[in-house]
Amino acid sequence: MEEKVIYIAGLGLIGGSIALGIKRDHPNYKVLGYNRSDKSREIALERGIVDEATNDFKEFAGLADVIILTVPIKQTINFLKDLATMELKTNVIITDAGSTKGEIVDAAEKYLTGRPVQFVGSHPMAGSHKSGAIAADVNLFENAYYIFTPSTLTKTETISELEDVLSGLHARFIQIDAAEHDRVTSQISHFPHILSASLMEQAGDYANTHEMTNRFAAGGFRDMTRIAESEPGMWTSILVTNKEAVLERIADFKDRLDSIAELISHEDEDGIWNYFNNARLTRKEMEIHKRGGVESSFDLFVDVPDEEDVILQILELLRGTSLVNIHINEENREDSFGILQISFKNAKDLEHAQKVIAENTNYKVTIN
Amino acid sequence: MEEKVIYIAGLGLIGGSIALGIKRDHPNYKVLGYNRSDKSREIALERGIVDEATNDFKEFAGLADVIILTVPIKQTINFLKDLATMELKTNVIITDAGSTKGEIVDAAEKYLTGRPVQFVGSHPMAGSHKSGAIAADVNLFENAYYIFTPSTLTKTETISELEDVLSGLHARFIQIDAAEHDRVTSQISHFPHILSASLMEQAGDYANTHEMTNRFAAGGFRDMTRIAESEPGMWTSILVTNKEAVLERIADFKDRLDSIAELISHEDEDGIWNYFNNARLTRKEMEIHKRGGVESSFDLFVDVPDEEDVILQILELLRGTSLVNIHINEENREDSFGILQISFKNAKDLEHAQKVIAENTNYKVTIN
Repeated sequence: MEEKVIYIAGLGLIGGSIALGIKRDHPNYKVLGYNRSDKSREIALERGIVDEATNDFKEFAGLADVIILTVPIKQTINFLKDLATMELKTNVIITDAGSTKGEIVDAAEKYLTGRPVQFVGSHPMAGSHKSGAIAADVNLFENAYYIFTPSTLTKTETISELEDVLSGLHARFIQIDAAEHDRVTSQISHFPHILSASLMEQAGDYANTHEMTNRFAAGGFRDMTRIAESEPGMWTSILVTNKEAVLERIADFKDRLDSIAELISHEDEDGIWNYFNNARLTRKEMEIHKRGGVESSFDLFVDVPDEEDVILQILELLRGTSLVNIHINEENREDSFGILQISFKNAKDLEHAQKVIAENTNYKVTIN
Repeated sequence: MEEKVIYIAGLGLIGGSIALGIKRDHPNYKVLGYNRSDKSREIALERGIVDEATNDFKEFAGLADVIILTVPIKQTINFLKDLATMELKTNVIITDAGSTKGEIVDAAEKYLTGRPVQFVGSHPMAGSHKSGAIAADVNLFENAYYIFTPSTLTKTETISELEDVLSGLHARFIQIDAAEHDRVTSQISHFPHILSASLMEQAGDYANTHEMTNRFAAGGFRDMTRIAESEPGMWTSILVTNKEAVLERIADFKDRLDSIAELISHEDEDGIWNYFNNARLTRKEMEIHKRGGVESSFDLFVDVPDEEDVILQILELLRGTSLVNIHINEENREDSFGILQISFKNAKDLEHAQKVIAENTNYKVTIN
């Protein structure tokens, strides 16, 4: 097997986890790393994430068969510019890990066209509330989408070569046009972050004059503002590099708010009912759609008393079953037991679980 | 102990659960029920939720010491009007369970003033994804807020008498002005439902022309649209009975969207950063605030591999510890293990758990 040299510029959570994933399937590959911070390089070397590390981006670039830029969007663009001036291996594959793709693909085409390199944009869709090389995890991308956005510098074999290099990440590789990637993610990620942050600020301001606001905030509000705790720097870069799509989503949403406000003003109960019902049906369809697709979800609900070790008792019954998620308290209650939601990988395990729990406990078991 | 007669009009999830809660502390009380549906009355009688049941609201009203209206908002108002024309026990306590309070309190004052009755509005803040007498649960309100909104028909002793009747619900009783209740809930519940439904509809429409929309929707989007699956009828009533506060929140939110759109248009990175950072700090403060309050939350994060029975293994280590919630996969990954989040009732249990897991596994353990 050919021994490749992989150069990962940026040894944070994403870069470090990619390095570990590459090594899982390709222990013979040499993985070189760049990071500005001494501490990050130290951790990456200690943990065996990389074989060698530098604080000078240019030092290893010429040695690499594959260069993966896992730095913030702006620095990614700066590095693409730098690479244009450097001696690189012929046919080196260059890719990145940015959350928006249009500006990065544009920059690659602008700076690297005419050079003997391949470029494809990448967006590995995973994250964590932790960060840094210390948090790097070989399983971070397991079953996550790893999106490739081709450029004019992408050759027929570029993506399959990269998929082979990254096979140990156990991700789901998928290709999509960069502009379309940015539009879709504006809708399902970037704009929702704006909504979440705006709702949080609104409630924060309201709490200044309405002191019960914080006290009564329950499950729904918590869910809707969870992503408002995301790292501001990354989201700032995302918004400025996906301006057009995001602004378009904001304008569209304001129209929707006007529509519902109009219905409320006129106390148009049928109209409001249809509004909510349409949203409900749309989400249910999305869920149903999931069942057939790759993101299958098979959920079981168990009513459990507020007693010690009740979850343990149920998990003991389910020993060996492929449960993929477990969650208590989705409802409007913050600190007592209630409904235990368990998700399984397939219908067979779901049915088995339902049977076992019904036979061995007197808890109510429901399938959604 | 005095034997009271309690009349619960509406034997759904809320009414049924209140009945069961009353009986837990007052097995000697006589609980009478009303429901239009034969099936609901049958279930309520079979399950011992009520002692007697009627399909004629007027039949039991005159027998009651306490009347609890647990029907939709409009029907609550109709029943208040009906009660004004009926022979009731002197000093009967009348209350309700509606999600908005202003219109109900107004109706009670309008129809019942001058009559020898007491009235206080109630909003028990709990719910479930299930409904009906079949789902009634004595623990539904455990630790949930049970809000009283006084009226001109509330006497000094009304609320304490009601708290005694309802003691078996194990809820947290609290008093607040009806109009203020409606303002606060517009911010933390009613308006967020509009946001969630609107985002869901927007994404649904977008998916028609951008097919990857459903595919890439991940944790954040799911969280933000979960409440879009709520029952449309109830939310329609809530919006039309809390029109003013909700419209005011919509208008305020549109201004906030304008502000962030302006920042994005001008690529004002500092401004955007501050916007996100402010939201993040506001939410973090809210969380910190929780620690000292009744809604304490002590969270532990464990990195777990995608292996069978790994949660079981951890819960076995924690046997006897007061864990209150457990959750996998808060992050941007839909169907593989990752970070297991376990919440405890107090700092002592949290520290104990951290120690035990660190000593007995090689999983990374973090305290947030």
